[in-house]
Amino acid sequence: VAAETAGVAHLDPAVRRLLADAVGAQHVLVGEESTAAYDNDWTGRFRGRSAAVVRPGTTAEVAAIIDICRRHAMSVVAQGGNTGLVGGGVPLHGELVVSLGRMATVGEVDVVARQITVGAGATLAAVRDAADRAGLAYAIDLGARDSATIGGTIATNAGGLNFLRHGGTREQLIGVEAVLGTGRTISHLGGLLKDNTGYHLPSLLCGSEGTLGIVTVARLRLATRHDHRVTALLAFGDVAAAVAAIGRLRSMLEIIEAAELFLDTGLNLVCSAFQLRPPFPTGHAVYVLVEVADVQDPTATLAAAVDHLTGVDDVAVAVDSVQRAALWRYREGHTTAINTIGSPHKLDVTLPLDRLAEFIETVPSIVAMVDDTATTWLFGHIGDGNIHVNVTGPADEDERVDDAVLRYVASLDGSISAEHGIGSAKRSWLGLGRSEAEIETMRDIKRALDPDRILNPNVLFG
Amino acid sequence: VAAETAGVAHLDPAVRRLLADAVGAQHVLVGEESTAAYDNDWTGRFRGRSAAVVRPGTTAEVAAIIDICRRHAMSVVAQGGNTGLVGGGVPLHGELVVSLGRMATVGEVDVVARQITVGAGATLAAVRDAADRAGLAYAIDLGARDSATIGGTIATNAGGLNFLRHGGTREQLIGVEAVLGTGRTISHLGGLLKDNTGYHLPSLLCGSEGTLGIVTVARLRLATRHDHRVTALLAFGDVAAAVAAIGRLRSMLEIIEAAELFLDTGLNLVCSAFQLRPPFPTGHAVYVLVEVADVQDPTATLAAAVDHLTGVDDVAVAVDSVQRAALWRYREGHTTAINTIGSPHKLDVTLPLDRLAEFIETVPSIVAMVDDTATTWLFGHIGDGNIHVNVTGPADEDERVDDAVLRYVASLDGSISAEHGIGSAKRSWLGLGRSEAEIETMRDIKRALDPDRILNPNVLFG
Repeated sequence: VAAETAGVAHLDPAVRRLLADAVGAQHVLVGEESTAAYDNDWTGRFRGRSAAVVRPGTTAEVAAIIDICRRHAMSVVAQGGNTGLVGGGVPLHGELVVSLGRMATVGEVDVVARQITVGAGATLAAVRDAADRAGLAYAIDLGARDSATIGGTIATNAGGLNFLRHGGTREQLIGVEAVLGTGRTISHLGGLLKDNTGYHLPSLLCGSEGTLGIVTVARLRLATRHDHRVTALLAFGDVAAAVAAIGRLRSMLEIIEAAELFLDTGLNLVCSAFQLRPPFPTGHAVYVLVEVADVQDPTATLAAAVDHLTGVDDVAVAVDSVQRAALWRYREGHTTAINTIGSPHKLDVTLPLDRLAEFIETVPSIVAMVDDTATTWLFGHIGDGNIHVNVTGPADEDERVDDAVLRYVASLDGSISAEHGIGSAKRSWLGLGRSEAEIETMRDIKRALDPDRILNPNVLFG
Repeated sequence: VAAETAGVAHLDPAVRRLLADAVGAQHVLVGEESTAAYDNDWTGRFRGRSAAVVRPGTTAEVAAIIDICRRHAMSVVAQGGNTGLVGGGVPLHGELVVSLGRMATVGEVDVVARQITVGAGATLAAVRDAADRAGLAYAIDLGARDSATIGGTIATNAGGLNFLRHGGTREQLIGVEAVLGTGRTISHLGGLLKDNTGYHLPSLLCGSEGTLGIVTVARLRLATRHDHRVTALLAFGDVAAAVAAIGRLRSMLEIIEAAELFLDTGLNLVCSAFQLRPPFPTGHAVYVLVEVADVQDPTATLAAAVDHLTGVDDVAVAVDSVQRAALWRYREGHTTAINTIGSPHKLDVTLPLDRLAEFIETVPSIVAMVDDTATTWLFGHIGDGNIHVNVTGPADEDERVDDAVLRYVASLDGSISAEHGIGSAKRSWLGLGRSEAEIETMRDIKRALDPDRILNPNVLFG
């Protein structure tokens, strides 16, 4: 996937005055010095140039901005923590950036209903902390938790570390306040779980990548806090044995928070990059890190369930936090270790579980056929078939490997985007994952809710 | 809510021939004798008259029907098991009925992915049985399980008995095949859980009551089968004590499948109607029936948790199935027992948990103010604030009590439809639960996906 760079953007002085009237002049940022942090994504791969950055403080101010943009045919990119990975939140075509950072209010936890209302600009970490202080938990977690915002996780339907047990952001989203491309402000934050009164707009906005509306406030479901965690590393002779064992384990245990796959090549790279001792005396082809969590100590439950598995060649169990962190390091070290070799092409894909072994076995040769200097690194979330394909070797702008891998994924009935979204990066491949009728239906909805095509018009659709 | 009766419907002979060409003449039913079972709802309250009933066998046949209807400006009502409660699935305005009953294929259970693909006309019971035979469970269950179809449960986002633990139908729905009002057929049945490639159409169709498209096939999530069930009946001095205790219980136990509320008046009516002995030596104001289920015997876990509760005046625990059925009879007997008094007005509403006690205390006097001959019966699902308000006394067509109760619910920030939907019955009150901006947004979506306004045009919107 090639880097994208936009040309110079321009803001009409009259529009600038209207925006300043709407949000206050100090919240309209113009000029490269003040907008650079918003114009470019954190990976440096997507470099844009905004007409301006506006920082509204209320939903009414967002509505005023949308109204101005509709009247002046200005395109808008909503931005949260700017931690997206597919160029969906940066102004690659001179758009106006609407940064939700000031709308970061974290409401009181409603302990009886087990819910919280938060501003779209609140960070994931802030929401997780608030839940924790109330004795509950927010089920979504991911590495970028300190920067990623709730609004961004809604726009991309973020999955993250504990998807296997809790689902993604859509499953946590009870209600939203949002300004749509039509200019309408919708607000449904009462938190009623059973409320069959027409179309479920939160589910539609979730995952729409800023193309239908700008979510300003969200009502979120909270979960039971599990204070007891146990982590096990299981070794297998091949991927098929690992898939079968994890399937079996899931049928016995409902307390699995994560099941993370990596391979011997990745483990060796991590051990050499960080000078770690390998987890077992001898090497194995495939490793799965399993984490369980419960309100009581789940060690015995996990041990009993693992005893029932076949095909497990070795096991290491970690109960205390130091041991657990040591096991997690083998998995979490992958990103940094791979970066020591070169800037990888990153493809986040899902495979049907019964095609996962075939995919992992075959994809390195698919990559090698396109570029025999490339190296393929594979790791991910085995429970939901989500594999992070990292390829080192090809130049940044060389998309041949990406194209071959995504086409291979589609041929196995997989998804070309598991959790990162389509954004700008994958829009030319949307047709691999969605039929023409689905894409046309999405366009029908886009036209209905954003008739002037001002909301993130350059993402999602090819 | 008054009964609705439609006038005589007419089917153009040329259209009849086109329909016969599309689905086979034997699957086009015309004339009151053959259509009566489809024209009237099972409660007898909603009596319609269809132009014809067509019974397609494939998605392509549904698409052909929609095409004919679009070209001839004929309205369509999709129908499953005809067990709806709000007149959303019967031809009250002479519509063509598209009955999905022939599309009842129940696919093989995918045990590793824990999913199943089924035709929209498959009954809930058939899907539950298939899951059970594979050692898994389908999480949705409700009294009408032998007649209600998967398509109907999707159209209404059915909640049912185990909502508290598993959520509603939307949470089980991974993918759909459907024909939209635009004529487009969308199909996304691959079953990938992580698949962020644009708008989530299954969530939008779920709960749309046949106004956007006709779902023909669904891919459903299956859950772990819990073979060990324990039921406890808890007695309380008032609703506030019950709400607090159940909130506390939920924070300790994640295995609660149901928490069902009823009151002393309802219990007395059930005991006298069925000549049952009351559960406790002395009466109590409020009862909550709690059911837990797990892969291991949860008796000790439940007992330990109940021991931690305050405000519980008495407890009965049932472990074997005969005892459990005896406790459930107090709750399940309500509908039949109330019917012995008269045909009740049934209002299915949700209250915020912190307004539930106030609502239950006050609503009988609200009803009495409107009609002092009326009696109010209250029972429901306490965990999610869902109360079934039954009122005996007022004539069928007298809507004054319904209006007063729904307005009172709205004033407490409750929902005027918890799980039954809006249908025809509640459409004039939609504005109590949704803002004008929300309703206009729903209309925007309706226009986009059903531009000719042929799909259930007389439900949902006022």
